[in-house]
Amino acid sequence: MRSFGSDNNSGVHPRILAAMAQANSDHTIAYGDDAWTREAEECIRVMLGNSEIEPWFLLNGTGANVVALQACTLPFHSILCASTAHIAVDECGAPVKLTGAALKEIPTPDGKLTPSLVLPHLHGFGFEHHSQPKVIAISQTTELGTCYTPDEVSALADLAHAHGMVLFVDGTRIANACAYLDLSLKEITADCGVDIFTLGGTKNGLMFGEALIPLHKELAEHIRYYRKQTTQLYSKMRFLTAQFIPYLTEGLWLQNARHSNAAAQKLHDEMRKIKGIQITQPVQSNAVFFILPKEVTDRLRERYFFYDWDESRNEMRLVCSWDTSAEDISHFIAYVKQLTLGDKFFSG
Amino acid sequence: MRSFGSDNNSGVHPRILAAMAQANSDHTIAYGDDAWTREAEECIRVMLGNSEIEPWFLLNGTGANVVALQACTLPFHSILCASTAHIAVDECGAPVKLTGAALKEIPTPDGKLTPSLVLPHLHGFGFEHHSQPKVIAISQTTELGTCYTPDEVSALADLAHAHGMVLFVDGTRIANACAYLDLSLKEITADCGVDIFTLGGTKNGLMFGEALIPLHKELAEHIRYYRKQTTQLYSKMRFLTAQFIPYLTEGLWLQNARHSNAAAQKLHDEMRKIKGIQITQPVQSNAVFFILPKEVTDRLRERYFFYDWDESRNEMRLVCSWDTSAEDISHFIAYVKQLTLGDKFFSG
Amino acid sequence: MRSFGSDNNSGVHPRILAAMAQANSDHTIAYGDDAWTREAEECIRVMLGNSEIEPWFLLNGTGANVVALQACTLPFHSILCASTAHIAVDECGAPVKLTGAALKEIPTPDGKLTPSLVLPHLHGFGFEHHSQPKVIAISQTTELGTCYTPDEVSALADLAHAHGMVLFVDGTRIANACAYLDLSLKEITADCGVDIFTLGGTKNGLMFGEALIPLHKELAEHIRYYRKQTTQLYSKMRFLTAQFIPYLTEGLWLQNARHSNAAAQKLHDEMRKIKGIQITQPVQSNAVFFILPKEVTDRLRERYFFYDWDESRNEMRLVCSWDTSAEDISHFIAYVKQLTLGDKFFSG
Amino acid sequence: MRSFGSDNNSGVHPRILAAMAQANSDHTIAYGDDAWTREAEECIRVMLGNSEIEPWFLLNGTGANVVALQACTLPFHSILCASTAHIAVDECGAPVKLTGAALKEIPTPDGKLTPSLVLPHLHGFGFEHHSQPKVIAISQTTELGTCYTPDEVSALADLAHAHGMVLFVDGTRIANACAYLDLSLKEITADCGVDIFTLGGTKNGLMFGEALIPLHKELAEHIRYYRKQTTQLYSKMRFLTAQFIPYLTEGLWLQNARHSNAAAQKLHDEMRKIKGIQITQPVQSNAVFFILPKEVTDRLRERYFFYDWDESRNEMRLVCSWDTSAEDISHFIAYVKQLTLGDKFFSG
Repeated sequence: MRSFGSDNNSGVHPRILAAMAQANSDHTIAYGDDAWTREAEECIRVMLGNSEIEPWFLLNGTGANVVALQACTLPFHSILCASTAHIAVDECGAPVKLTGAALKEIPTPDGKLTPSLVLPHLHGFGFEHHSQPKVIAISQTTELGTCYTPDEVSALADLAHAHGMVLFVDGTRIANACAYLDLSLKEITADCGVDIFTLGGTKNGLMFGEALIPLHKELAEHIRYYRKQTTQLYSKMRFLTAQFIPYLTEGLWLQNARHSNAAAQKLHDEMRKIKGIQITQPVQSNAVFFILPKEVTDRLRERYFFYDWDESRNEMRLVCSWDTSAEDISHFIAYVKQLTLGDKFFSG
Repeated sequence: MRSFGSDNNSGVHPRILAAMAQANSDHTIAYGDDAWTREAEECIRVMLGNSEIEPWFLLNGTGANVVALQACTLPFHSILCASTAHIAVDECGAPVKLTGAALKEIPTPDGKLTPSLVLPHLHGFGFEHHSQPKVIAISQTTELGTCYTPDEVSALADLAHAHGMVLFVDGTRIANACAYLDLSLKEITADCGVDIFTLGGTKNGLMFGEALIPLHKELAEHIRYYRKQTTQLYSKMRFLTAQFIPYLTEGLWLQNARHSNAAAQKLHDEMRKIKGIQITQPVQSNAVFFILPKEVTDRLRERYFFYDWDESRNEMRLVCSWDTSAEDISHFIAYVKQLTLGDKFFSG
Repeated sequence: MRSFGSDNNSGVHPRILAAMAQANSDHTIAYGDDAWTREAEECIRVMLGNSEIEPWFLLNGTGANVVALQACTLPFHSILCASTAHIAVDECGAPVKLTGAALKEIPTPDGKLTPSLVLPHLHGFGFEHHSQPKVIAISQTTELGTCYTPDEVSALADLAHAHGMVLFVDGTRIANACAYLDLSLKEITADCGVDIFTLGGTKNGLMFGEALIPLHKELAEHIRYYRKQTTQLYSKMRFLTAQFIPYLTEGLWLQNARHSNAAAQKLHDEMRKIKGIQITQPVQSNAVFFILPKEVTDRLRERYFFYDWDESRNEMRLVCSWDTSAEDISHFIAYVKQLTLGDKFFSG
Repeated sequence: MRSFGSDNNSGVHPRILAAMAQANSDHTIAYGDDAWTREAEECIRVMLGNSEIEPWFLLNGTGANVVALQACTLPFHSILCASTAHIAVDECGAPVKLTGAALKEIPTPDGKLTPSLVLPHLHGFGFEHHSQPKVIAISQTTELGTCYTPDEVSALADLAHAHGMVLFVDGTRIANACAYLDLSLKEITADCGVDIFTLGGTKNGLMFGEALIPLHKELAEHIRYYRKQTTQLYSKMRFLTAQFIPYLTEGLWLQNARHSNAAAQKLHDEMRKIKGIQITQPVQSNAVFFILPKEVTDRLRERYFFYDWDESRNEMRLVCSWDTSAEDISHFIAYVKQLTLGDKFFSG
């Protein structure tokens, strides 16, 4: 089964699996007090050019997000995010449950917050009846496959800081942003004023694992405890951090992201040639959003697994992976063509 | 580095690693809707002789515990446990934070609750000022390495049920209990009236992964959501459940537990021969608790990593693993002998 | 100081104060096990024509709302409400903190939810990644002073029930709805399919106190504990329930609401005659919303206390009370006239 | 009905009721932005000789406790208290639910913590697996009617501060401590190093209301929001703070406490003369604890309402109020004498 269902439907990059196997020797102190973890931490410090940074390794993306948000908030705060954000839609309320804070969902056309969308929510500071705005939370790249430019991120960081707030970046697919923008991790985070962000692994060729990177000491202070209390402290940590070492030092993080981005671009280029398909979002990472008549997508689904994005208008999402092949794309496109040619909506 | 620090200091059983590598082919639907997960679930149903059971797979022991406790409680309930319980001591307050319920810690001599220890806490039912007792939570085997007999478990289950409560078993090391008692998983859980339990993997040769097994439909009803909201739903689930298949079908779970139990027994037998060592708990699983003068343990620690258990009386804990070797034990014993012979407290 | 700032800026109706003083004799068992509470409960049962109902008395409106929502939800649920709802805006995140559930805010033109506004949010049932929709929460009357008709409430109740959800009514000002619609409490709650509602007192002439009324046994089951755990159980309960007896049996609840509604209507009628004032919501209870130039409202504020509603368009809110007098209104109107006549925006 | 059931079974002191009635004139800004509240705050600052202090007024004792604890903790902290503490026993888990922190209950003979009882719990600092000790919480006077001396409080404050922790005093009955010790409020709080405490009203003659007094700016910082989010912000605040003005400025707080203390002493003096009664705690405030045969207390209960304290040994609690009269005591004593004289256990 080959699919465009999600970038977590693919497996583990062989180089990563080899690193895990290699880490499986002898005994090691658990919970991260080991040589692999030290090395993985150092990799991140080097990438960000900042020897003061304390990265934290967690099991999955939802976990990394909710630990980050706990580090930034108290229960009387509010967190502002796009209404399509993973933290608002796809984490079964974990951010709200774990922080106790309010989540204010802001509708956007493309999954991206802007200062003008956020500004109307920045009021009531000091007024005890209102949750106090504390975090602007964005996803880079977004759940709609779009990518913030550094200027756009900086503008949100400035807005946050002007109001005593912090900018959090859910970087589940931040590698795809680096690949798309052709910029370093540092250039799209620390250099833009981001306060805390996650660096995804699971959706980009790792077996599991995300890094959480606070860029200010005061945000880092309690993460140790929040990670444990949120059930995100992995005992046999070396098997997580052993993945991050080749991922970061051998450029796999970027190479995989470039691959999946390029695959999505190719998929998009082929799909837009097909009559009757409406592409609904610009392709700036590894996802393609499109609308096809339900009759077509129902048949497409017989052979391919993928998610409805907006059922009300029959919008679908395809996601490419680090291992999506040219054949995967050509087979898929051929099948779509076959279905749409035969379809009464497009024929004649 | 070889250690007796913890059973999560050891690595992954090679058979398990092979199964994970084998699962790394092609794409698969994420979050557990895959063939490996179906098979692992079925293994558990077969072991428990009950086709109705719905097992759930989670990332780690703390996660499995707190999801189980959420399935059993509302925030105005209380959970009764031994004051040495992992949920009381070693989870940074996660059970309390995630459930909102009160944890009532009951002192015990050996880590085991008994009806007579629990009974004084079973009052105030219907009295709104008091947290309502709802869960008796035990660990099998306990954090002190002791093991409940089936009769002891049954007595606690009966007490719980007589008060409208449930019996939860933290089975991080339940395989060690089966090995020690020479009984099946079913005989020490379902047959004793246990309502919900976890089946550990991480501390018994897996890379990561625990199963949560509710034995009543009403306890199972919401686990799907609690698992996700607790950040314990693993996306690339096949790599977790692929471990459980050989673990359960090829008898690794029991074989590994037997190995670590036998190693602890051997360690105990050798240590008790050494003058000046006080063994503080019966060895009924893979741990040995003992007291040695601080001067000795300080030097022991130069070569070996292990945890203080009760610093106030210099009580230490050693834990054996699925891979503890005869050499590990003989080297350790030789070193202890050397230290104690030279020690002023024991010499002459 | 006379004001239109809020209906909690006014004092206590003298009949209520007298009842409280009368209750101050001798000793009485605390926490509601007293004769006053029994009688107040019975009043509510009689009003609703249902001898099975168990009403609960709480200290304030936020408390009553969050206890109600706890009775209806588990942390993986979501609560749908208008984006202007008190529970979304004015309770400092208490509903989210106390329930752990997600709050989904739905924009409305007039503070009223409708089936067509709610429907797009009713998806993802059974999908563990999404918070599960469980409560439709409305305010009657709304925070914008508008009133649901019985048909409108019924339509929302039907929609809720068709999806296994419940309809909660924040009835802080439900007396004003009865007054406006000229219908009984039963006709606008139980008869419309409402599942649980609050009956306000504090904003309608009481010193403090709200009733929470679950209309189904299963919603009532745990309220006793949620009330206590939410710090809403009042010890000297007789002083709360002694207020509700004359309030309900002597028709004060309706008389006060009719008075404040009529006052708002009068205020509205006078204001709409003034050139340059834009009334922004229909007056269906005791509040009037209007837009005046900032220059005018700034001066108005020198003499009167009131709240900005939407600062971005200089929208203000005035609220009338059970004790708003004809003089209060005529003095206010005269002052507004004076200000607007002199104002450069309106003159000549 | 006259009772010794609890000090919240009595009513409101007439001076207080008069002050409430007097406050019922005209309109006033809600939520504490009023003249009564300013004056009540100032009273407390004067009593404590510290013009920097920001007192907060809340609805009840459970509310004041949980807001205080939220001001002191994050969810990964632990709170140490006597196992008889109101926060552990009588608040239906509110402190744990609202803070998310762990509550560590320490058994005591007399309801009083001491450094040597607390010390064994002060470990694991910096160890992420353990909840981090943050608060020593005591009740002054205790739930067993005992009273800490200033030296005893200072010793606990020193211990707390030496470990980076804070000392919280639940002062529901702190007036009784001042009366018993013949010391000012300042002498038994600020002067002893207390960090934050509550000043009770409801159990000492008020209709409702408690003050929360943080003695350090950093503990005060977020109380405004925690009070609102915990549903403890009273809208018509003047009716709460109008009580505190005569309570504090006219010495009622101390006079009422002296009265109830003296009544308890008298009750104790009479009871100890009765053969067969075992007094179980020293009388240092307004409560008397005693053991009588169940046959006697069962009959006593036919005429008097009171609480079992420890059912297992038939220990009862009597509490005196600000209005307990000499007749209340003489009637009660006479009845006990009649019952015990007639009782087979004591006759002959």
